[in-house]
Amino acid sequence: MLTCDVKIRVWYKHTDQMGFVHHSNYICYYEEARSAFMREYGVSYARMEAEGVLMPILHIESDYRRPAFYDDELTVRVLIREVPRVRFTVDYEVYNSQGELLNTGRTTLGFLRKESMRPCRAPQWFADLIRANGGEE
Amino acid sequence: MLTCDVKIRVWYKHTDQMGFVHHSNYICYYEEARSAFMREYGVSYARMEAEGVLMPILHIESDYRRPAFYDDELTVRVLIREVPRVRFTVDYEVYNSQGELLNTGRTTLGFLRKESMRPCRAPQWFADLIRANGGEE
Amino acid sequence: MLTCDVKIRVWYKHTDQMGFVHHSNYICYYEEARSAFMREYGVSYARMEAEGVLMPILHIESDYRRPAFYDDELTVRVLIREVPRVRFTVDYEVYNSQGELLNTGRTTLGFLRKESMRPCRAPQWFADLIRANGGEE
Amino acid sequence: MLTCDVKIRVWYKHTDQMGFVHHSNYICYYEEARSAFMREYGVSYARMEAEGVLMPILHIESDYRRPAFYDDELTVRVLIREVPRVRFTVDYEVYNSQGELLNTGRTTLGFLRKESMRPCRAPQWFADLIRANGGEE
Repeated sequence: MLTCDVKIRVWYKHTDQMGFVHHSNYICYYEEARSAFMREYGVSYARMEAEGVLMPILHIESDYRRPAFYDDELTVRVLIREVPRVRFTVDYEVYNSQGELLNTGRTTLGFLRKESMRPCRAPQWFADLIRANGGEE
Repeated sequence: MLTCDVKIRVWYKHTDQMGFVHHSNYICYYEEARSAFMREYGVSYARMEAEGVLMPILHIESDYRRPAFYDDELTVRVLIREVPRVRFTVDYEVYNSQGELLNTGRTTLGFLRKESMRPCRAPQWFADLIRANGGEE
Repeated sequence: MLTCDVKIRVWYKHTDQMGFVHHSNYICYYEEARSAFMREYGVSYARMEAEGVLMPILHIESDYRRPAFYDDELTVRVLIREVPRVRFTVDYEVYNSQGELLNTGRTTLGFLRKESMRPCRAPQWFADLIRANGGEE
Repeated sequence: MLTCDVKIRVWYKHTDQMGFVHHSNYICYYEEARSAFMREYGVSYARMEAEGVLMPILHIESDYRRPAFYDDELTVRVLIREVPRVRFTVDYEVYNSQGELLNTGRTTLGFLRKESMRPCRAPQWFADLIRANGGEE
């Protein structure tokens, strides 16, 4: 299994009138954590799009245990178990700076050839990256 | 079962560079559809907060089948099966104006007493509203 | 001068922990009001993009007088004085349902040929639309 | 004059279908840059709210010169000229990692006593902080 911890700061804009981080933002935290994980491993999602491959979201789920607040420095732990073929599944654990687990989630993405808008397999270099760093077949 | 169809227009702001509606917006479409359902039934979520009851999100899930686009007029079908006690579960189906099913989802909310920040039961008037309109015990 | 009143509902997502609508949302209300104005006049911004013309924002300003709140039904008055040539300037007045003026603003947009990413003039049909409805040269 | 450079990463969520950062996000970049500037100087906007002082936005303006893109690491330069009394004016310059100036902006905030929702003066500690770091009277 590949794991990567990403720091994300809560912006004022992310709060709602309950005084908590609005729940939709976690979905964006997951996305930015995926971007940061790729930067960490020397690749980039921008490269994937430049090569003509889009990664649309197919499924998300999220469980909320405790609220996050403005200015919190969150740690989003990205967990990747499997080498992607036609799907890429990522799990997430979101902690606050006291180490409390606030939220867990999962996203499943597909691969889409931009030109034809038809599903395709994960690019070889991307599958290799996950395989080389602990992904299971 | 109680159902309610809510029209939601896609804003330019909701798109991303893939040219689709960014997936996090569906979570907000669900939320606004809940608000609209309550207005439709003559009540208001603002009333609930004014009475000191917050409804934090506990769980969300969402499945994406086809993309939505800028300026689309979506129909969000709100489906409520059960009279809420300590949880309120709502299902969603999102259609475009051609009647294609784009997305399905589910949210589970809790009830929280604002003063004590402790869980509580659904307000009687709210449970009664769902019961009177087809909710099952 | 051309004017058009557009109703916009405040979503829960638009609030922040001050309990007001977060100020950045007015910028999106302006944008959606422009979209709605175009629909009202039988045209569409999607058509403009389909014809290869982008309208990037060049300047925005916004003055905040009173807060808006969750579930408010706002009226965004769109005011267009001049027929667009290489710039399109729109003024806005945002009212709540009590008729109180909450916010005033202005946006200036340019026209950009998508293929070359170079500035261009407003499409003829768009300039004609504004001219025919009270725009001044 | 007090200046502070803040790094802000562009998220995928910040893009729109033009392929650029949606213009409303700059308003949030300004806000987060103000938060980061306060952290840099050992204080916090959360402290201000905890002391019962809100800082609502009164005016914003923003000029867009060049687009920003997904994954860009932006530098937001925060410039504060005057010690705040009943208003706090901040200027911004946004650069990409090639040092190109993308955007300039200004925000003016007021001070509001939370309890009474009436305007008040800047807290002494905050005025002192700006004064001690180059703010002019």
